[in-house]
Amino acid sequence: MAFSDFYCIAFGIGTRNSKGEWLEVFYPVPIFKPSEQDVERIAQVLGYTGGNKAIDLNEEKIGRLAPYINDSRQQSILGMLRGANRSRVACFIETDSAINSTPEAYLKLHLLSQRHAKPNQINLEGIFAKLPNVAWTSEGAIDLAELTDAQLKARVEGRLLEVTSIDKFPRMANYVVPHGVRISHTARVRLGAYLGEGTTVMHEGFVNFNAGTLGTAMVEGRLSQGVVMGEGSDLGGGASTMGTLSGGGEMLVSLGENCLVGANAGCGIPLGDRCTIEAGLFITSGTVVQVLDENKNFVKMVKARELAGYSDMLFIRNSQSGSVECRTNTKAIQLNESLHAHN
Amino acid sequence: MAFSDFYCIAFGIGTRNSKGEWLEVFYPVPIFKPSEQDVERIAQVLGYTGGNKAIDLNEEKIGRLAPYINDSRQQSILGMLRGANRSRVACFIETDSAINSTPEAYLKLHLLSQRHAKPNQINLEGIFAKLPNVAWTSEGAIDLAELTDAQLKARVEGRLLEVTSIDKFPRMANYVVPHGVRISHTARVRLGAYLGEGTTVMHEGFVNFNAGTLGTAMVEGRLSQGVVMGEGSDLGGGASTMGTLSGGGEMLVSLGENCLVGANAGCGIPLGDRCTIEAGLFITSGTVVQVLDENKNFVKMVKARELAGYSDMLFIRNSQSGSVECRTNTKAIQLNESLHAHN
Amino acid sequence: MAFSDFYCIAFGIGTRNSKGEWLEVFYPVPIFKPSEQDVERIAQVLGYTGGNKAIDLNEEKIGRLAPYINDSRQQSILGMLRGANRSRVACFIETDSAINSTPEAYLKLHLLSQRHAKPNQINLEGIFAKLPNVAWTSEGAIDLAELTDAQLKARVEGRLLEVTSIDKFPRMANYVVPHGVRISHTARVRLGAYLGEGTTVMHEGFVNFNAGTLGTAMVEGRLSQGVVMGEGSDLGGGASTMGTLSGGGEMLVSLGENCLVGANAGCGIPLGDRCTIEAGLFITSGTVVQVLDENKNFVKMVKARELAGYSDMLFIRNSQSGSVECRTNTKAIQLNESLHAHN
Repeated sequence: MAFSDFYCIAFGIGTRNSKGEWLEVFYPVPIFKPSEQDVERIAQVLGYTGGNKAIDLNEEKIGRLAPYINDSRQQSILGMLRGANRSRVACFIETDSAINSTPEAYLKLHLLSQRHAKPNQINLEGIFAKLPNVAWTSEGAIDLAELTDAQLKARVEGRLLEVTSIDKFPRMANYVVPHGVRISHTARVRLGAYLGEGTTVMHEGFVNFNAGTLGTAMVEGRLSQGVVMGEGSDLGGGASTMGTLSGGGEMLVSLGENCLVGANAGCGIPLGDRCTIEAGLFITSGTVVQVLDENKNFVKMVKARELAGYSDMLFIRNSQSGSVECRTNTKAIQLNESLHAHN
Repeated sequence: MAFSDFYCIAFGIGTRNSKGEWLEVFYPVPIFKPSEQDVERIAQVLGYTGGNKAIDLNEEKIGRLAPYINDSRQQSILGMLRGANRSRVACFIETDSAINSTPEAYLKLHLLSQRHAKPNQINLEGIFAKLPNVAWTSEGAIDLAELTDAQLKARVEGRLLEVTSIDKFPRMANYVVPHGVRISHTARVRLGAYLGEGTTVMHEGFVNFNAGTLGTAMVEGRLSQGVVMGEGSDLGGGASTMGTLSGGGEMLVSLGENCLVGANAGCGIPLGDRCTIEAGLFITSGTVVQVLDENKNFVKMVKARELAGYSDMLFIRNSQSGSVECRTNTKAIQLNESLHAHN
Repeated sequence: MAFSDFYCIAFGIGTRNSKGEWLEVFYPVPIFKPSEQDVERIAQVLGYTGGNKAIDLNEEKIGRLAPYINDSRQQSILGMLRGANRSRVACFIETDSAINSTPEAYLKLHLLSQRHAKPNQINLEGIFAKLPNVAWTSEGAIDLAELTDAQLKARVEGRLLEVTSIDKFPRMANYVVPHGVRISHTARVRLGAYLGEGTTVMHEGFVNFNAGTLGTAMVEGRLSQGVVMGEGSDLGGGASTMGTLSGGGEMLVSLGENCLVGANAGCGIPLGDRCTIEAGLFITSGTVVQVLDENKNFVKMVKARELAGYSDMLFIRNSQSGSVECRTNTKAIQLNESLHAHN
């Protein structure tokens, strides 16, 4: 067996329903791109022979694994997992292919949130089918079919079973809190979000799985699945990014660096760097826009999707004529030159 | 005593303040429209003689009730309630009239969330007066007058008393999770919401009591009290529905089937089927709208309230002229014919 | 030592990280503007000699303090603090100057939320530097560096450590619930918010620290840092207030009395009394606005910032011409007179 270029191995602890099916898995520190030697040692102990697989761990296996692990952090994790009263698992992802198990789905979401893989750069095919819809409660994940009895039992015993979410995705912060971030309200960031160092997600911010920020950023609006914001950008309070593939092609929305999408605004096209959409203005890919040059002279009329990816654009709705305009920032005469060139 | 056409009986468990007043009641499985025989049996054991009433349960009464109940689910509930260390109650609603007690208010909210009664089809008169304002905490409902001491006591004992809400209405999911729904953030759905099977309420969605969805639906915006969405409709991220009675008459906002209200849009009139409001556009009942026919020819100018209830309308703000237009969908030439007919 | 005009003393209980640094402090009932005699007595027992200082409390000190305190509420608090297994502190703020410790920062936030000081009327200079970024969990405040191990430990022991927020500011309701308010979702109101009696903050409402309402008010939108709403005003669902200093000067946004900012609208200027911004319309300080008199005749064209502070204005976007207009309310002919006078 040759295990070069192995994608990931992780030891986790999770929850199963009464039928033994996985509801969720927590991986404290996945081993991303493990060395060939590490994979071989772990494989030997656990009888792993290749492919993407989740192998149940028990006391005996954990005990045998420990001496084979060089990494002190992993040893400490295995030490803690030993003696746990929940299900434990070793998840092997040999290649980044379509997802075929719940432990694998959870591991990929961890890899995004732990910044090993950027949004749109990891294969999430099949994830919805492998993520069960779960009741997330103050006592952990509970199968929906088992919820009402659990609620009544808690009541009878004088406790409240708080149900915080009924969803396929848990909140990220119960699994991963990456370094250097603030998340004012963790219910708004799903596991699988990627938050760059220096990111603040305010109370009105939202980050879906496979979406996020690449560096310092302020997120007070909603980052839909697949949408990424660059360093220095600011998504204003209540601002919307359209998550579905937009326009005629497969145009994924994104914000470049140092962009500002104002409060209650919306964005349906990818923006380059240093772009602004004024507060309250919604630009969809089909919005007809007047392009103005740096002297506010009319250049041409386009659908917004034709401006996809350009930098240094300022979108406003003229508050007297009511027309949506794209003005150049003073710094960016290049923009209109490139637009002219496209004429 | 004749108890034909009885509305509802339910056995519940709840919380009282130190004065013995009810703060809230949880009814695992209400008996909606019970048979005359069932009502008579239960009435006999509990000394119930008619009307809408809440009767306290104790160990002895629960013990005597059990043999009279045929339903195995109810028997199991009574079995669990026996020995509970919180207050238990039997709530009788003979007729769907104005609410006169806290247990009755809670039972009616359960009936909505458990899909026994649709929004606007149950009598909620007087509900605000019968719902106390409560501190909802990680240790259950607490009377506001008793909160500060409870918080300090928890601190001193090394616990955190998490206060999640100060409100008359609790979050639905702590009481009812209907079949076939996802609620990404349960704090946004009040008890008394009605969620049809196949409904997803995303993080930005909100559903008030006596509001909801009649079937498969995507709720990423706010459904105000009284507002209902039909099968196949989509309320976009941050979209608003106006909950107060609007216009000159008593026009309750609603969405028919297969409607789309875009992100950050708003709706102040009832819509028929297959209507769209574009992202970012707010239609109030007083918005002056140009109606265009299927060839985009001007038909007439109306206030939006005059379009209430029509199907196949597309509302946009012309991004060049700034005027709000109502265009027909290509499928729906009928719309403008009916509009013409009204001329 | 003369302690006349003393600002505040408070006894608190809080959390420290493993290095002994404060993460947060809870002060059940601060003594605002204590009498000179009270300060002297407490100072004597604790060896306080002046300045803004936090002095650690232990069993012995608490025991010696109790006889010197006349106030029965404070005595009861000291009685509860005695025997607590968390850190306790006495915080002295002699003068309302820049903040120089974490206990002092927390005390000032309490003073705002307990209605001792109104927003913008207390010195918060330096607060960000003195508030550590904390993991707020179901088991209390945890240092971020200690979080992953705490999460794994909880898992192994079969518990869920719920991480509700990663932030410098905690939610207010875990510290202070002022009299006569409803807060449908406490995650949306930061400690340091000021909520007047009769205020309802609905699920979509948000109130930052040093912001709030001065009386009865409905908050369904976002009150940014520094923004205050007057008695009888209503901030609609999803409405935005701009929190940064706007325009050319240092124009802080505010709403006077009986204002209405509609759903999904936005406000970037201070409003006087009885002003309305229609649903969906965003007024920034730079928005060019047509001012119309009571007969809808054109008066002049201004940037919105020139209308700062006026009363009886109605802002709409003409739904046919697309232009933003400021109309007078019928009650308020004075407005346009004053505008004319400024010409």
